[in-house]
Amino acid sequence: MRIALMQAEAAPLDPERNLSAIDAAAAAALDAGAELLLAPELFVTGYVPRSLASWLTPERVAEFPAELSRIAAARGIAVAAGFPAARMDGGFAIAAGLWDRGGAEVLRYEKVHLWGAEERLAFTASDAEPRIADWNGRRVAFQICYDIEFPEPARALAARGADLLLVPTAIDGESDYVAEVLVRARAAENRLVVAYADHARSADAPLDEPTAGFAGLSTVAGPEGAVLGMAGRGSELLIVEIPDRAEARPGAADYLADRRPEIYRRWS
Amino acid sequence: MRIALMQAEAAPLDPERNLSAIDAAAAAALDAGAELLLAPELFVTGYVPRSLASWLTPERVAEFPAELSRIAAARGIAVAAGFPAARMDGGFAIAAGLWDRGGAEVLRYEKVHLWGAEERLAFTASDAEPRIADWNGRRVAFQICYDIEFPEPARALAARGADLLLVPTAIDGESDYVAEVLVRARAAENRLVVAYADHARSADAPLDEPTAGFAGLSTVAGPEGAVLGMAGRGSELLIVEIPDRAEARPGAADYLADRRPEIYRRWS
Repeated sequence: MRIALMQAEAAPLDPERNLSAIDAAAAAALDAGAELLLAPELFVTGYVPRSLASWLTPERVAEFPAELSRIAAARGIAVAAGFPAARMDGGFAIAAGLWDRGGAEVLRYEKVHLWGAEERLAFTASDAEPRIADWNGRRVAFQICYDIEFPEPARALAARGADLLLVPTAIDGESDYVAEVLVRARAAENRLVVAYADHARSADAPLDEPTAGFAGLSTVAGPEGAVLGMAGRGSELLIVEIPDRAEARPGAADYLADRRPEIYRRWS
Repeated sequence: MRIALMQAEAAPLDPERNLSAIDAAAAAALDAGAELLLAPELFVTGYVPRSLASWLTPERVAEFPAELSRIAAARGIAVAAGFPAARMDGGFAIAAGLWDRGGAEVLRYEKVHLWGAEERLAFTASDAEPRIADWNGRRVAFQICYDIEFPEPARALAARGADLLLVPTAIDGESDYVAEVLVRARAAENRLVVAYADHARSADAPLDEPTAGFAGLSTVAGPEGAVLGMAGRGSELLIVEIPDRAEARPGAADYLADRRPEIYRRWS
């Protein structure tokens, strides 16, 4: 299976333009033989939590899922992307969704670990256990940005059978270790594939936002932490061939079989 | 603080020779200004679990702790090393111990995650929660080899205040990702220092043992997964300066503060 990660610059608070960019990337991804396009965290509005705190209304965000569904159906390729969503409790979530190539919603997720004071100005953290969906023969789940830096959620998903984690992200340029080390570790220790799609570094990012310079370095990591594909700093459509979960090296560690959850529970 | 990792070839089933090698390395480590020497997993007997299954007796292993204590006291430097130890239940543990520069025992540990069928022939896995000891202003704990590949134990130790994990190991040459990715991830996600000391690669390792060719690559990893020092493949005394735990970059992620254990418990 081939997947495409969209590393690009989002236009702050300009969903129309950003949805057009996702549409164009979906077309290019399909041309490259990919079955899925993954776009970064909050790409639909731009990752500008400080600005979003005053911009967000339920009306402004209501149509984002339908528009992403339309792109998937129109282009005939599965689309996963990050966007803000209204919550039942009146707040907003940093959300992600996956639509199949017919435009049907396969999976929705809301970020559990918010990053820093700025995200907390605009958003509420979810407490909900991430769902796993069947899609094109894979067991797929979401994490968003900071979520994947914690070992616990990826472990819980792997224990329930997930084999592909889609991770829209917006990671700052001082934290290269997240793509280079933590994303690879989550793949290795859980024997699954992690696709981590970041915003491209921008020369003229808004200086009052927490993440003025993104890392780029969108990454797909696989068995034993192998880097299956990694982008540079700038805009790029990263096309990566991912292996089946079954393809572990003979003699490779089987962490899910060998871990000892009953004693960990006693320790914590 | 400066520490020394001993990456060397152990002589199979020849404790006298291996203890002499630890003694010589302790002297060299002290000369280099180190406060601690860390030797690999089962270094005292060699990492030869298949051979150890028939060799081990309580009498043969009884004096190892006392001999390591004597080396520490004679050289005036703390010594941590891996050795086989008799268990209360009649079996044997893959053990590690830390003695301070006066020869007093600071910490003892028995491996929780055994690797492969060969280790299970000779050894019994421990269920005990790892202890944390105060030593030279640090909060120190052990993991042994396969233990550190699981995120759960290191997380439990970090949550209880550990800031330096000593990890004697014996990792095969097909698993470089453990030193290069997982060891760095444990340091990054828990904001502590991990010192991972492996056997040197040997050209004439016994072919009937599971790990004929070791990886080498002894590593010390620190904040944000930084490689503070890494050995090559062969014999080497790796001298590494380690930072205080307090030295986190302003704005760095605080995973222990931001993790959400109450919801992880619901998920697993």
